[in-house]
Amino acid sequence: MSDPQALLARLTHLLGSERVLTAESETQAYLTDWRGRYRGSALAVVRPGSVEEVSAVVQACAAAGVPIVPQGGNTGLCGGATPLADGRSILVSLSRLNRIRATDADNNTLVAEAGCTLAAVQQAAEGIGRLFPLSLAAEGSCEIGGNLSTNAGGVHVLRYGNMRELTLGLEVVLPDGRVWDGLRGLRKDNTGYDLKQLFIGAEGTLGIITAAVLKLYPQPRSRSVAWLAVRDPQAAVELLGRLRACAGERLSAFELVGRSALELVLQHIPNARLPLPAAPEWSVLVELSDPHADAGLDSLLTSFLESALESGLLLDATLAGSLAQRAELWALRENISEAQKIEGFSIKHDISVPVSRIPGFLAEAGRALRAAWPGVRIVAFGHLGDGNLHYNLSRPAAEDNDAFIARTSEVNRIVHDLVDAAGGSISAEHGIGQLKRGELQRYKSGVELDLMRSIKAAVDPRGLMNPGKIL
Amino acid sequence: MSDPQALLARLTHLLGSERVLTAESETQAYLTDWRGRYRGSALAVVRPGSVEEVSAVVQACAAAGVPIVPQGGNTGLCGGATPLADGRSILVSLSRLNRIRATDADNNTLVAEAGCTLAAVQQAAEGIGRLFPLSLAAEGSCEIGGNLSTNAGGVHVLRYGNMRELTLGLEVVLPDGRVWDGLRGLRKDNTGYDLKQLFIGAEGTLGIITAAVLKLYPQPRSRSVAWLAVRDPQAAVELLGRLRACAGERLSAFELVGRSALELVLQHIPNARLPLPAAPEWSVLVELSDPHADAGLDSLLTSFLESALESGLLLDATLAGSLAQRAELWALRENISEAQKIEGFSIKHDISVPVSRIPGFLAEAGRALRAAWPGVRIVAFGHLGDGNLHYNLSRPAAEDNDAFIARTSEVNRIVHDLVDAAGGSISAEHGIGQLKRGELQRYKSGVELDLMRSIKAAVDPRGLMNPGKIL
Repeated sequence: MSDPQALLARLTHLLGSERVLTAESETQAYLTDWRGRYRGSALAVVRPGSVEEVSAVVQACAAAGVPIVPQGGNTGLCGGATPLADGRSILVSLSRLNRIRATDADNNTLVAEAGCTLAAVQQAAEGIGRLFPLSLAAEGSCEIGGNLSTNAGGVHVLRYGNMRELTLGLEVVLPDGRVWDGLRGLRKDNTGYDLKQLFIGAEGTLGIITAAVLKLYPQPRSRSVAWLAVRDPQAAVELLGRLRACAGERLSAFELVGRSALELVLQHIPNARLPLPAAPEWSVLVELSDPHADAGLDSLLTSFLESALESGLLLDATLAGSLAQRAELWALRENISEAQKIEGFSIKHDISVPVSRIPGFLAEAGRALRAAWPGVRIVAFGHLGDGNLHYNLSRPAAEDNDAFIARTSEVNRIVHDLVDAAGGSISAEHGIGQLKRGELQRYKSGVELDLMRSIKAAVDPRGLMNPGKIL
Repeated sequence: MSDPQALLARLTHLLGSERVLTAESETQAYLTDWRGRYRGSALAVVRPGSVEEVSAVVQACAAAGVPIVPQGGNTGLCGGATPLADGRSILVSLSRLNRIRATDADNNTLVAEAGCTLAAVQQAAEGIGRLFPLSLAAEGSCEIGGNLSTNAGGVHVLRYGNMRELTLGLEVVLPDGRVWDGLRGLRKDNTGYDLKQLFIGAEGTLGIITAAVLKLYPQPRSRSVAWLAVRDPQAAVELLGRLRACAGERLSAFELVGRSALELVLQHIPNARLPLPAAPEWSVLVELSDPHADAGLDSLLTSFLESALESGLLLDATLAGSLAQRAELWALRENISEAQKIEGFSIKHDISVPVSRIPGFLAEAGRALRAAWPGVRIVAFGHLGDGNLHYNLSRPAAEDNDAFIARTSEVNRIVHDLVDAAGGSISAEHGIGQLKRGELQRYKSGVELDLMRSIKAAVDPRGLMNPGKIL
């Protein structure tokens, strides 16, 4: 590596001194992940404002042999955007690339730069009478570049897909600083390898995404939301199949909530209210939506629930009768993470298995964990429609919990081994980052790791892009 | 390369002599594409029956340094599955890998081997009360491996996506014979690079797909089909936007048909009948479908069409009143290719542009072609909902047409330059194969071609997989 001071001078020449941050007071917020689990170090934090500037920064870093860590809204959960502690890299913040470059209602697309917040993209879509359906808790501060780099999911994946399915084209600054303009707004394009797929979900290890063509949908104009008490997870899976068979794509959320998760919300979140006479062992939040203003969703859902009650799969249900009730039901689901944070630390897993294997996984994992730690508290909830569960564990008593947390890797082993045996994923929607690199090595086949390393070596032969992440 | 006879002996040892074809009478059907435009040659055609046999064949070929050409149902349109004429390669037919390995109604997936016909996959889905939505003219003989390798499209892409979007996992034999087992049936899995995306649409140049996990949907139980006469393509685009805004994902086809296309069908196809009093300059075939048996689609479509008539976008429309009428309307659209074949040779283009740019493209291309060849016949039709047109050109008189056909590259230049200027694709759904290699070099940027070559070199460093295709 050449002289770091020379690189900093070069970057200052390119961007101006106010865009090259080195003082700890200025860099601190970029060098720590928002949960405070990772603390990194960097030669500088730079804030380019255009794809040309990003390209120039990457060229300068490449010439100096200095690693680059791209960062968006810094809301990731796996330390993927936090540099390593060695202080050798340049952190490139994309937040100033925050223009909506174009909207096209007839093509149902918009072009957003990487630093647009998810909320800004949702608003731009709304501005032309369309929906951008990605929705997740951090949407006010997470940025599209990060959503792309982690292939973000959320509550509406069962209807609209992940970020990958919502993306038609990309613009990417490659590890040598060249710009790949793949900003095509096409639904059908079979002209060779689909390169955008490489960069989506690559967590910045293959290049820096600077802009994307995103898919839009009609805005929903009617909605119906219900809270269901179900016999058990198997009943939830059966209800999901039946509801899809009559509601089709109108089914826009199907969220499973275990009793401990619901109880934490009722305990810690002001104004949270039990929607049924007693807290069910397993609940499901269902949402139907339709672009037609007069789609008859309430009556469709009511008649479905009536027949499900008769069949015994469903124990009880309440349909939201007003906008306020709908918001109340959704708040029960959306506040689970917050309630858990208030309750204290827990060992979290973001896993997926085939939908058909959710009931078996829950039964086996529960048995294994209770055998190892009698009285363990299992907080399970998530996107049943996608086979994706947040499966979090703690001890009810604080004094026991510290000892339990110290055994995280034993807990992970039990949970992840069962996920693996069920053909599942140890990271359904949060990615790998620094957090799960070791687990990735354990659960991916040698062939798959080899293929991933070949791709990395082909696109980033000098290994300068976001080192120490994923691989 | 080592002795070809030694390789043939090795392959015969692995598969048995009846699975290693060398007699011209036996190999001929594999060595010519079905339209008879490409004629290749090969050391042998081999017919393995399992992934283990495919792996052994590839290992043997790799050891001998002999190129491999994978082939499915041999229904491709670009010569992608026809070997080069040099006779150096082994053609690997996947047709004997034709098992449905598993079905999972609760997970909405099935696992099909590469040699299953598309029709067999559709039937397997139906057998568990589900829909596999990919549908195209060759479905009785095309095979899933080919559909995957060309990222097949068809008439329902606007609702369900291309083959890529219908695929959750793959099993692939790599160029060195190792098997990558990526047969995961997960909607959410963010554990590193999404390797399956590399092989989908790669036309066999990176490995041999041997099996896939495919996504299933609820079966439609109601349908409504109408034939529309629209003012012009711009009116069709506006109607598409309005119809989506009220019908949402129920809109399962939106096909534009120009007058010459309709007239060819009326002229050449027995029992084809004009659905409206006069042949419109531009028609649209619309289909709505819904899993609910009692979805009120006819009344939704009728009231939509009434208001569109009032606004002047729509000139006339007829709604199919019976199953037979629905089939008649669909036959008008589906028989266009057949009618063209009967009429004679034409210069075909399978192109896409953003939906919003379809009207402008049609106007400009029409002007440019008519200026160069007064009286040129333009047969334009296709999947307007995806921005994908089949744009085919001929001279009405046979004697003029031969001279016109001889100028194919001039015609391509006019059409493809306008497609490129509109941000479009020169191959929307048929792929590149041998047919469009030259055009790909012309229209892809140097950066994109470099990236594609790096990927090819990383995954297939010896260049043994399907040489002379795409790159």
